[in-house]
Amino acid sequence: MPDVVFSVDQDKSMRDQAVPGHNRWHPDIPVVTVVRPGQEFRVECRDWTDAQLHNDDSADDVRDVDLDVTHMLSGPIGVEGAEPGDLLVVDILDLGPTAQTGSAPGQGWGYTGIFARDNGGGFLTEQFPDAYKAVWDFHGQQATSRHLPGVRYTGITHPGLIGTAPSADLLARWNRREQALIDTDPGRVPPYALPPTVSGALAGQATGADAERIAAEGARTVPARENGGNQDIKNLSRGSRIFFPVFVPGAKLSVGDLHFSQGDGEITFCGAIEMGGFIDLHVDLVKDGMAKFGVTTNPLFMPGNVEPRYSEFLSFSGVSVDRDTDTNHYMDATTAYRNACRNAIAYLEAWGYTGEQAYLLLGSAPIEGRISGIVDIPNACCTLYLPTAIFDFDVRPTAAGPVVADRGQCAVTS
Amino acid sequence: MPDVVFSVDQDKSMRDQAVPGHNRWHPDIPVVTVVRPGQEFRVECRDWTDAQLHNDDSADDVRDVDLDVTHMLSGPIGVEGAEPGDLLVVDILDLGPTAQTGSAPGQGWGYTGIFARDNGGGFLTEQFPDAYKAVWDFHGQQATSRHLPGVRYTGITHPGLIGTAPSADLLARWNRREQALIDTDPGRVPPYALPPTVSGALAGQATGADAERIAAEGARTVPARENGGNQDIKNLSRGSRIFFPVFVPGAKLSVGDLHFSQGDGEITFCGAIEMGGFIDLHVDLVKDGMAKFGVTTNPLFMPGNVEPRYSEFLSFSGVSVDRDTDTNHYMDATTAYRNACRNAIAYLEAWGYTGEQAYLLLGSAPIEGRISGIVDIPNACCTLYLPTAIFDFDVRPTAAGPVVADRGQCAVTS
Amino acid sequence: MPDVVFSVDQDKSMRDQAVPGHNRWHPDIPVVTVVRPGQEFRVECRDWTDAQLHNDDSADDVRDVDLDVTHMLSGPIGVEGAEPGDLLVVDILDLGPTAQTGSAPGQGWGYTGIFARDNGGGFLTEQFPDAYKAVWDFHGQQATSRHLPGVRYTGITHPGLIGTAPSADLLARWNRREQALIDTDPGRVPPYALPPTVSGALAGQATGADAERIAAEGARTVPARENGGNQDIKNLSRGSRIFFPVFVPGAKLSVGDLHFSQGDGEITFCGAIEMGGFIDLHVDLVKDGMAKFGVTTNPLFMPGNVEPRYSEFLSFSGVSVDRDTDTNHYMDATTAYRNACRNAIAYLEAWGYTGEQAYLLLGSAPIEGRISGIVDIPNACCTLYLPTAIFDFDVRPTAAGPVVADRGQCAVTS
Amino acid sequence: MPDVVFSVDQDKSMRDQAVPGHNRWHPDIPVVTVVRPGQEFRVECRDWTDAQLHNDDSADDVRDVDLDVTHMLSGPIGVEGAEPGDLLVVDILDLGPTAQTGSAPGQGWGYTGIFARDNGGGFLTEQFPDAYKAVWDFHGQQATSRHLPGVRYTGITHPGLIGTAPSADLLARWNRREQALIDTDPGRVPPYALPPTVSGALAGQATGADAERIAAEGARTVPARENGGNQDIKNLSRGSRIFFPVFVPGAKLSVGDLHFSQGDGEITFCGAIEMGGFIDLHVDLVKDGMAKFGVTTNPLFMPGNVEPRYSEFLSFSGVSVDRDTDTNHYMDATTAYRNACRNAIAYLEAWGYTGEQAYLLLGSAPIEGRISGIVDIPNACCTLYLPTAIFDFDVRPTAAGPVVADRGQCAVTS
Repeated sequence: MPDVVFSVDQDKSMRDQAVPGHNRWHPDIPVVTVVRPGQEFRVECRDWTDAQLHNDDSADDVRDVDLDVTHMLSGPIGVEGAEPGDLLVVDILDLGPTAQTGSAPGQGWGYTGIFARDNGGGFLTEQFPDAYKAVWDFHGQQATSRHLPGVRYTGITHPGLIGTAPSADLLARWNRREQALIDTDPGRVPPYALPPTVSGALAGQATGADAERIAAEGARTVPARENGGNQDIKNLSRGSRIFFPVFVPGAKLSVGDLHFSQGDGEITFCGAIEMGGFIDLHVDLVKDGMAKFGVTTNPLFMPGNVEPRYSEFLSFSGVSVDRDTDTNHYMDATTAYRNACRNAIAYLEAWGYTGEQAYLLLGSAPIEGRISGIVDIPNACCTLYLPTAIFDFDVRPTAAGPVVADRGQCAVTS
Repeated sequence: MPDVVFSVDQDKSMRDQAVPGHNRWHPDIPVVTVVRPGQEFRVECRDWTDAQLHNDDSADDVRDVDLDVTHMLSGPIGVEGAEPGDLLVVDILDLGPTAQTGSAPGQGWGYTGIFARDNGGGFLTEQFPDAYKAVWDFHGQQATSRHLPGVRYTGITHPGLIGTAPSADLLARWNRREQALIDTDPGRVPPYALPPTVSGALAGQATGADAERIAAEGARTVPARENGGNQDIKNLSRGSRIFFPVFVPGAKLSVGDLHFSQGDGEITFCGAIEMGGFIDLHVDLVKDGMAKFGVTTNPLFMPGNVEPRYSEFLSFSGVSVDRDTDTNHYMDATTAYRNACRNAIAYLEAWGYTGEQAYLLLGSAPIEGRISGIVDIPNACCTLYLPTAIFDFDVRPTAAGPVVADRGQCAVTS
Repeated sequence: MPDVVFSVDQDKSMRDQAVPGHNRWHPDIPVVTVVRPGQEFRVECRDWTDAQLHNDDSADDVRDVDLDVTHMLSGPIGVEGAEPGDLLVVDILDLGPTAQTGSAPGQGWGYTGIFARDNGGGFLTEQFPDAYKAVWDFHGQQATSRHLPGVRYTGITHPGLIGTAPSADLLARWNRREQALIDTDPGRVPPYALPPTVSGALAGQATGADAERIAAEGARTVPARENGGNQDIKNLSRGSRIFFPVFVPGAKLSVGDLHFSQGDGEITFCGAIEMGGFIDLHVDLVKDGMAKFGVTTNPLFMPGNVEPRYSEFLSFSGVSVDRDTDTNHYMDATTAYRNACRNAIAYLEAWGYTGEQAYLLLGSAPIEGRISGIVDIPNACCTLYLPTAIFDFDVRPTAAGPVVADRGQCAVTS
Repeated sequence: MPDVVFSVDQDKSMRDQAVPGHNRWHPDIPVVTVVRPGQEFRVECRDWTDAQLHNDDSADDVRDVDLDVTHMLSGPIGVEGAEPGDLLVVDILDLGPTAQTGSAPGQGWGYTGIFARDNGGGFLTEQFPDAYKAVWDFHGQQATSRHLPGVRYTGITHPGLIGTAPSADLLARWNRREQALIDTDPGRVPPYALPPTVSGALAGQATGADAERIAAEGARTVPARENGGNQDIKNLSRGSRIFFPVFVPGAKLSVGDLHFSQGDGEITFCGAIEMGGFIDLHVDLVKDGMAKFGVTTNPLFMPGNVEPRYSEFLSFSGVSVDRDTDTNHYMDATTAYRNACRNAIAYLEAWGYTGEQAYLLLGSAPIEGRISGIVDIPNACCTLYLPTAIFDFDVRPTAAGPVVADRGQCAVTS
């Protein structure tokens, strides 16, 4: 086990840790430590909400979650010798939930949430405007949920969020272009984007005026951007190697939002099985790598070679037509994937799951979301691959029709 | 080898076959034969352009292709007992290029094209407005191209286009909603969609007024729709089972646009390695299956279990920001995947490929296109997985930088 | 399709072909053609028995088969420039059954046989001394058998037998060491080895005294030896590359005994799904490769990357104890694997298969036979991995016990 | 993390633990705890030698190891309700090295040993009669060795040894049949088998006369037998489910000999990367399962679905001919696999590894050992699949010949 360079006491909020982390992107958040190229080290993490959600049977905590404090990150970690223009090479050696059981997410359990339309939303928020939750129990590499009987996943554990710090210029670009988007419909619910928000901001070890400036300017952590960030790539698991653009001296790497499992798209917004835990990393540098390899706008990565091996899938397709109005959208992969998801939900409902159970399942199970056709005007075609082996019953179509059963219900709001 | 129920002489156009096929979707195209549930049969196919492209080093044929005659399909094949509301179960037993070598695509060779912005376009048509071509030689299950030295793919052969006939009502919906989209910008180049087009229409064995009506009303074959159609799903290969909605008595199954290999998205529009050849099918029915399984808007399928096994990938990500203008689009997976593609092209250019070579490569190679994050406002995040084993040199990033070499050029226009 | 350099009329015996093949290994069998390094070419093959077995429901043909005429090989093919000490690089581009249906094995069907103890024997010949047969129907890449209901395999097609010609010295060594083994128990049934046998010998295009000498001296084709030969490696499928030692000028490559599918060990002796058909090859040379790479006693190969993808297995283990007498053998992997096979048969019998059906299934299905422990004195431990997905019922153990059903019977002798 | 039911202080020998384990198989060793069907629990383990080997550069510890104290097991664990004739279902939920770094194997490092011919031996002990060692450093799921530069494995972690207690009758059979084998050549070095040995015996919590009797009668742990035991199955990793025969009331499950990685056969005898650590298990029962499923002589198991994904292999074959004397052995898979191993070693020597380095590599790397042909008289054919991706250089054969380099040396004896 490598040395811990960022430690977390899961009984305390991130704000109250001996060395606190941060929940905004800003070049001026001080580094918590400096590692050298070639070094292996461990980082401990809180779950993305800083443990606002509980191991119970009510979704009230999802409905009422304070999203201003998300995502709680560990870091930033400085890398000796890293300069703008370099590529920071990060190997994910290991990661997992916490060793101890307890009441914080990751302590033997995790959760998946459907966020309410009024507080976070999600990919199918028009179809599912209310809050729901599923709690998962960990069994080594596998998880089960009392709220989703009949399924058992082997986790492709990964960090939902990992990235380097933006430069001041890049941060300014983010804020400008996202505000422009917000300005196209400022009252939209859910909003188009989140501007810098002082409420709930945590600036690591910065204090005083520095902390206030970081809170006022710091980019929200929710989207993926040029620095990586909240990419939610389900295959960024153990054994993966990532090449991050470096925008500031020292690179300033941060990580958090660990997932026990997730489907492509993380469609319920909080679709992964969320947890706190640890991640072991190794870092190195490719000097001047951004120009050398043409990696200028987003990280490049190589997934690891250890993943659950599935060989049979049910694949649902969707095209870019709004089904409710029969309106054709031009090459719109988002609409196409939404339809593929809705088709998968309809299929699972035929077997007795509720729609919200099916939606939670598709967020957290190791499904693949593929852009199958993106050139055949006017319809993009996306496909969703659902592995059949995660079910403890035979979920394949037969001439006899589906076996309908009472499959319970997930946690709902009071 | 099962009985041939639709045979093709590759020396003749589809129009001149003893029993011609069709290139429009319409419920009234007469069936060429009727098969029973449980039957296995072979269908022979022309390539999608009806052999307008040649095994040479000029892309003039791509530039000048007549798209009104595409996609040339074999069928429709009636299935005994199939009624609207059923699911037609189609197993792909085998498929491949023609047995004989010759001058038609599929006769020992195939092609990939970048279509010109003015005649077809493609996913990156703004970046690549001109026509290009790569010709591939088949070596059993693998293909190489003199226009793309350094790569060799094992083909995941599949039909780009397979589907059932629409009902008259469904056809009318297609025509209405696509015309509505066209009407939003009628002069756009490339167009938003293609309306029914009498020029070039082929209505199978229909004649006289019937043929004229089919030409006037028949939906173009280019997009994927409720009936399957041009889904361009690269994994719909040997061993796959598809469950098609049935909209008309007899189901009326048609198939064509065979691909030797394709990447997710088929991004150059004619991105697959295109070929004529044969496909062996087995059919069955799930009576009333659409309602039983909730499969009402698109086919469901189960991919086969025989695919090239790759274990190492370079993964490029992109987010939904227009890079040229730094404009943020909201949860736009199409833009995100476009950026992932551009990032992959930039990477390959760093090794000496031209941009158009890289673009052709990404269309035809067995890349995976994933919707990784679709909920983290405002940025969708898509990823493109490029298998490293298709290259005959080590294409992974190293501290030493890429090995730049003269990697030739694809076919260009005169 | 590459040029055919060895053609076979499946309506005629190998002996009656325009250019006959051979069924003995000898350096003096004349080449049928000479190919150059870099060339691709097709070879057509009879099944290994030269079509002595039939598509019927009796195993009399297995019981009465004339083994003196086996294995019928196509070739030898000379390779320009190949000299002793080189490595001959052979790529398997494609292979499969014949295109036409008919009465010869490979013409739409194949067979698996349990050979009688008195005529061929097999791995479990003491337990199964009589002849049995299963006939398989091909459905594209898959096969089913009326004699083995409930299973369906995707074929890992491969040549059971492929090799280069021995030098005169090497041939003499083979004959000497195998005769020495026979001499330890000359009357054994089945015999320890087969000496050169004039009866049934076919020496290709050799005639007169040459043919007589070849028949008198030529090594039987049944075992694997330094030249490759009857290795029966189930993964030597499409996409594989083999590096053969070259022992004579021109290498003299021969091939035959095509298999639609086989399990590791081919345990019933004729355990594969046997067929005639075609194989497409590409050849090249590594000059002086035997010394360069230390490949002096057996071929080296690299399996292809296209195989059925299975993810769940039942694994049976066995140790090197004779179960019938409770006698311990020292590190005897053969005994250990025999026990693993018997354990698998007992398991399948619990579900309703007859022992001979189970034995036929394990010979032909894509099982893996592993040497798990070979150092833990005194017991070797071998394991047999049976993929569960080849069954159309759930074959996994449950607390409820196996579902016993009438699963028919294979072909038996009259 | 489940409750620990058997804990180990890695600073103390197994003999000095608060609750000691055992190193002999005997029905009368008292259970350390009783678990119920459905329970999940953690067991901590010493490495198999009880930490006799060290993280240094000398193989003297291997040469001088006391094998009378091996294999140190944790347990036995009683299972409520288990009766003879049942199948004990054991799920491996997780396993790994210890969390802390330190001087005991498993504390951040492990080792592979070639045992001396005079003290343990191994599969190629005639070729490698002296002791050697390689020490491995763990990096999350991967390991590297200063003694084997150029390779890096992802561990398929597994218990080398896990099994249920024999009944008194079964134990008597073991002792009888193994003594009979020893008696065929009592002075053989290495011996054919190991009889019960009082020296070094540890009988768990048994004391006095009980302990003496157990030491005098208890079977040595080295071989695999009907109860499972030292099967050394490299794929018995996380996610595996094992069905053990139950021979005594309570089943009495014991486990130890954890491996970070191992190749099929574990050919150097101590061929795995050996470590202490933990294993998390879940147990259940199939009442009367031995008769129901015909699982009477050895455990049945289902491997997990999470393993390193390799797609390219070098495959070495061997046949059952003694190469040194050119003597033919009849269907001898052990000899065939030995030749395959020697062929692989010769190949690696051509690249600059020493023979002993190559031998250590083949013991510990995730190679596959296959019984390819076991019926083609007189030669068994075995194959060894070596994944190419574990090397950091291109190890495939080319026309240019191997790249010879100084690849260091493993630890040798003084």
